[in-house]
Amino acid sequence: MEHPFADIQYCETLFNRFYDVGGLTSGGVTRLGYTQTEDQMHEIFAHLGGELGFENRQDEVGNTFVGSMAREGCYLIGSHLDSVIDGGRYDGVAGIIAGLMVLRWAKEEGLPIPVRVGAFRCEESSNFGCCTIGSGLVTKELHRQRVAGLVSRDGETLESIFASRGYSLDPPRISGLSGYLELHIEQGKVLEESGTSVGIVQTIAGPRRFKIYLRGLAEHSGATPMALRSDAMCAAAELILEIERLGNKEAAYQTVATVGVVNSLPNVMNVIPGEVELGIDVRGIDLTSLDRIELEIKDAARRICARRNIEYLEEKLSEFPPVNMSGDVQMGLERAAQRLGVSSRRMMSGAGHDAMAFPTLCETGMVFIPCLKGISHNRAEFASLSSICDGARVIYEYLKGAAV
Amino acid sequence: MEHPFADIQYCETLFNRFYDVGGLTSGGVTRLGYTQTEDQMHEIFAHLGGELGFENRQDEVGNTFVGSMAREGCYLIGSHLDSVIDGGRYDGVAGIIAGLMVLRWAKEEGLPIPVRVGAFRCEESSNFGCCTIGSGLVTKELHRQRVAGLVSRDGETLESIFASRGYSLDPPRISGLSGYLELHIEQGKVLEESGTSVGIVQTIAGPRRFKIYLRGLAEHSGATPMALRSDAMCAAAELILEIERLGNKEAAYQTVATVGVVNSLPNVMNVIPGEVELGIDVRGIDLTSLDRIELEIKDAARRICARRNIEYLEEKLSEFPPVNMSGDVQMGLERAAQRLGVSSRRMMSGAGHDAMAFPTLCETGMVFIPCLKGISHNRAEFASLSSICDGARVIYEYLKGAAV
Repeated sequence: MEHPFADIQYCETLFNRFYDVGGLTSGGVTRLGYTQTEDQMHEIFAHLGGELGFENRQDEVGNTFVGSMAREGCYLIGSHLDSVIDGGRYDGVAGIIAGLMVLRWAKEEGLPIPVRVGAFRCEESSNFGCCTIGSGLVTKELHRQRVAGLVSRDGETLESIFASRGYSLDPPRISGLSGYLELHIEQGKVLEESGTSVGIVQTIAGPRRFKIYLRGLAEHSGATPMALRSDAMCAAAELILEIERLGNKEAAYQTVATVGVVNSLPNVMNVIPGEVELGIDVRGIDLTSLDRIELEIKDAARRICARRNIEYLEEKLSEFPPVNMSGDVQMGLERAAQRLGVSSRRMMSGAGHDAMAFPTLCETGMVFIPCLKGISHNRAEFASLSSICDGARVIYEYLKGAAV
Repeated sequence: MEHPFADIQYCETLFNRFYDVGGLTSGGVTRLGYTQTEDQMHEIFAHLGGELGFENRQDEVGNTFVGSMAREGCYLIGSHLDSVIDGGRYDGVAGIIAGLMVLRWAKEEGLPIPVRVGAFRCEESSNFGCCTIGSGLVTKELHRQRVAGLVSRDGETLESIFASRGYSLDPPRISGLSGYLELHIEQGKVLEESGTSVGIVQTIAGPRRFKIYLRGLAEHSGATPMALRSDAMCAAAELILEIERLGNKEAAYQTVATVGVVNSLPNVMNVIPGEVELGIDVRGIDLTSLDRIELEIKDAARRICARRNIEYLEEKLSEFPPVNMSGDVQMGLERAAQRLGVSSRRMMSGAGHDAMAFPTLCETGMVFIPCLKGISHNRAEFASLSSICDGARVIYEYLKGAAV
């Protein structure tokens, strides 16, 4: 790392090459998975690989790889190039930039192990309501049956999109990897608030999602005395606060609970809310804590609704177990950071990532870098180029260690 | 009232004549104010008046009157023929039917005082976001300045609609009335729950409406620890429950408080709610209680938001004072009900009505009839024809008393 200034310049060059794709007048970007905008991102990525002197390859589901195509012993540095709607320019892209930087250093210094950088398709759930499609299919963590019928925002099934692109919903499983590494912006503010340069992910939280539908009576807000009401929103409010309380109680186990979706009907000034839909997201790394909070949320719903004479229905949308990163990789990354004098801390990832798909295939690790105020999935998303460089250096240093 | 069976039959005939207008496949009706659908209702009303042998008159804002056009000493029985979107067939129409029944009896029995039935335009706020436009303009309770710029759901201003119809936004004030009477469905369930046939309105509640906007931080639901959150929805939930508690506390003064509108942003599963908009409707007949609850709601918002580090903004949308019905008319209606053996109780009206516009002009009274489960502003709205007949009979009996 003799040329830190040159590194930042290269990082900036890479960042700017992707900058305009899917740009919006709002300032944000929309680069939905399996659209032409994402294609453009992949073309730029392939081109950047070519500029470094590497060939590129597109796999059976549209993921793009540059670097060594060695069949065995390869280290894969991956992330994604799609975005949410009106999102930022760092989520995913930062990891691809870091990968290209590592690839450049590896070539310049003649790192004696093969390195490949992979851009996975459609990591965000914004287009199909399902995340990590590209990485999930080629690792066999996601199966044809689960995704074929998914419908894009434009109303096309993933199956028909794959057919028109000549992709396969049943690609061969990726193989021959010695390790998978991913740099990603934290999307939280733990690093920023603690003043730490990089985070080393221990576990990626397993999300559980529920809907709870509450039904009371939609009556005239003026003509219905307080004592005669069945107000679905008041019951929902009580449940929201109870879910917050339970989240705080389980915070000791790094479990979080959020009511992100609240829809009220008829949602007008002069009618008592008759129906409310709540969308609940619970995440954590401790299965016992997750099981306990799930049970307690259901119990709270039953208790609150019985007391308030509100009907309710609960529906579990999904449940994924927490995914552990390799202990050896964590230790290796930590030592690499130490050697470089880059401050680090081990931490969990609340968000899901492509890295979730790899622990069954190879040793897997993730490096987080801070993002401003923890803002992500938002056009205001920001991470500094020097943070990307720091993270990339830690990964490269780790690979140097692995090569010994 | 020698022919109760014939009365019900006539009532049913009237009800059926209006039935199909604005009918929806849902079973409900949409008859928005100042639309052709409302015009159709007024034409039928004028026609029904003609069948009873009465002339009709349309005033400068499109209200339709049938019956005596006597310049002095006339009793006006009024209500409206418009509806909310996908509403029921009784709100407003029941009062017009009752008026026509009274008109028929008055003619048959030679009641020695002039009676006129008036259908007021656009009582519901569904088309222009403003209620009682027809009655408000001709009583000068509503002024040109307040309504000219209102925009319909189709994007036309009330001013342009009035111009194209040859109406005036500054009509002469209605005069020469000895009294105003209105029958309306209760839109609550006080009569049903107490098993009473008619309600005699003492006071029409004054609504106060507010919006409160809460702003926290829209962060990743998985990546933001519970302790680092500024969740706008949790603050909103606390405020909703506090408003409910304050409503219950003020219930002794017949004040009610409702959070009917809740809009959350971005309202997705994986983001902590960053912004919430609450629409609050407070109504009551006791000014001290209304002032107190307004103050306490604002105080609660300040307290909750300060503790949770949430920014907020409050906006008062409207405030109307409670409107008292004439004490003499209340007593007269009560005695009329007693003479007929119809059970009655004095009560407040939580909802607003055309009758609010008349107390500054003449002695004003309202009769409520029960509606099934209190449901109104909904296609499931239902009142029995015999309830409409009971209410009409009480009004007619009152007029007979007034004629003595």
